[in-house]
Amino acid sequence: MNIHMNLGKDSYDIVVERGLLKRASEEINLQRKVFIVTDSGVPKEYAKEILNQCRDGHIFTIAQGEESKNLKTFETLLREMLSYGFSRSDCVVAVGGGVVGDLSGFVASAYMRGIEFYNIPTTVLSQIDSSIGGKVAVDLDGYKNIIGAFYQPSKVLIDPDVLKTLPPRQISNGLSEAVKMAITCDEELFEIFEKNEPMDSIDEIIIKSLNIKKSVVEQDEKEMGLRKILNFGHTIGHAIEKETGFSSFYHGECVALGMIPMCSDSLKARLIPVLEKLSLPTKADINIDSVSKAISHDKKVKDGKVSAVFSDRLGSFEIKSIECDSLKDRIALIAKGGNSR
Amino acid sequence: MNIHMNLGKDSYDIVVERGLLKRASEEINLQRKVFIVTDSGVPKEYAKEILNQCRDGHIFTIAQGEESKNLKTFETLLREMLSYGFSRSDCVVAVGGGVVGDLSGFVASAYMRGIEFYNIPTTVLSQIDSSIGGKVAVDLDGYKNIIGAFYQPSKVLIDPDVLKTLPPRQISNGLSEAVKMAITCDEELFEIFEKNEPMDSIDEIIIKSLNIKKSVVEQDEKEMGLRKILNFGHTIGHAIEKETGFSSFYHGECVALGMIPMCSDSLKARLIPVLEKLSLPTKADINIDSVSKAISHDKKVKDGKVSAVFSDRLGSFEIKSIECDSLKDRIALIAKGGNSR
Repeated sequence: MNIHMNLGKDSYDIVVERGLLKRASEEINLQRKVFIVTDSGVPKEYAKEILNQCRDGHIFTIAQGEESKNLKTFETLLREMLSYGFSRSDCVVAVGGGVVGDLSGFVASAYMRGIEFYNIPTTVLSQIDSSIGGKVAVDLDGYKNIIGAFYQPSKVLIDPDVLKTLPPRQISNGLSEAVKMAITCDEELFEIFEKNEPMDSIDEIIIKSLNIKKSVVEQDEKEMGLRKILNFGHTIGHAIEKETGFSSFYHGECVALGMIPMCSDSLKARLIPVLEKLSLPTKADINIDSVSKAISHDKKVKDGKVSAVFSDRLGSFEIKSIECDSLKDRIALIAKGGNSR
Repeated sequence: MNIHMNLGKDSYDIVVERGLLKRASEEINLQRKVFIVTDSGVPKEYAKEILNQCRDGHIFTIAQGEESKNLKTFETLLREMLSYGFSRSDCVVAVGGGVVGDLSGFVASAYMRGIEFYNIPTTVLSQIDSSIGGKVAVDLDGYKNIIGAFYQPSKVLIDPDVLKTLPPRQISNGLSEAVKMAITCDEELFEIFEKNEPMDSIDEIIIKSLNIKKSVVEQDEKEMGLRKILNFGHTIGHAIEKETGFSSFYHGECVALGMIPMCSDSLKARLIPVLEKLSLPTKADINIDSVSKAISHDKKVKDGKVSAVFSDRLGSFEIKSIECDSLKDRIALIAKGGNSR
């Protein structure tokens, strides 16, 4: 299955296919210097599978986790490429989750002012979400993705077979983003979650999610407006992430929590069972005031108001600018212990 | 005088006008956070002139010289902007020569994945040359401009009045690049150098040079081919720069030396008097073998051959792939002591 991203001269293909890793060299020209970036949490055999198909490949393994996504690692990778004599016609291949993709994409964008970048995402989250968008970045001084570029890959290879080594919690973490896209844009996709065992339909879920993100991104390459719908569940979700110090919950779990308060009651009645089926949280031990305060400190807030995405019924959305304070009652819905503060 | 760069959605204007610095706020929206980057060699009053027109401006002064163009300064500048709370709708303004422009352009390209960048070049070289091209970069491990991006400014302000504080050697350094463009592309421009006092015609020289570079870059935004003509004089010039450790000669002086061997005898007879008029070197104390070796180690060399630009008559050029070794006789022409090795 090929999904073609129409972005003018930056167009590229996303190939979704089981067993794709084994035949990567048919999709990517590996007869040159290839810098393969992976992390310590990714099974080693995935990067090796690529290395074995390269004429002159080099694997660089970063430490797993968001902490690696900084300017220091960025510089280390660039130095490494210089020392191997990488030229403008060589390439970078990311084999891993979002951290590996974001970091090595930024490296590829900056090395000699840009060399080819190939992304082979190995988590549900990165296959569904971060393989589209052209955002490459590192963190700085606690700000996530604050330094980077808009840089499109030359190709994205998605092999659902690699997901079989993921722990269940990581799978649910990624599927949460698919649920997010289903709610605002695709009733059929949502029904798959209701009716099937998600991992039995993972190929279909990935493809449908990619097609939603594709159409949003193609219409809004530089994040001017429409892309906001991808933030559904993220206004409260991000605040919970910040409040809990990025430790208790995965990103997708925070998004799961963050979606509930933004839905109408009838939609909530369908959403919550799906989240429960995925073992995603629907209530959390959070302080309503702190989460509300975290939202009001967000840099997107203007005059105490934040622009957030709501949904009244499946496949639809509304972007409204509301008072941060008015979100408190909504946050209470997902706080353990209910409305008490 | 407005020169419009046609680069699709990355199009921008170059404004050339005496006294432009004083009315910068009419050309740039300065009613926001403005990060003004300058260096210790630029008269302080230029950056201050901009600051005085800002609602919320901040000057950052880097140390003068190529040594500042590294990832460490890059990170320092980004941190500084974060600490001032710069948002995606704020901007960076470079006030200085090529180092300041290249570095702060890369900073602007990376901060929040790209905020508006304005360039106010203050040297002849940067007004003529580095204000067009969209190349922003820093050096790494001795490799010049190896890390960066292609990122266009939102506007370039060229005020020839600022050149009056430049030392004569710096002026000649920049004019060398104008002579380079004249030889390959513009007989009329060359005649200005022959007939006039260059500084009396500096506005015209700048505008003519910008128009040449504009037409080359518009036809070849990503450096695929035609841009090679801008390398006239640079094959041997760069090698001399490397061999002399970037210390004895300025860049433009090396280009002056590098142009001579690439011209036909009749053209040389016109070029050398112009270079002498500009106090640019036409002979240098160089080791022919070392310079030749430096060329053959260049990363652009393939199978002992280098693609270099030659000119037989004014306003024309030829790009030929030649054996590096065959350049020795040509290098001998500019070596003090002539053909002896």
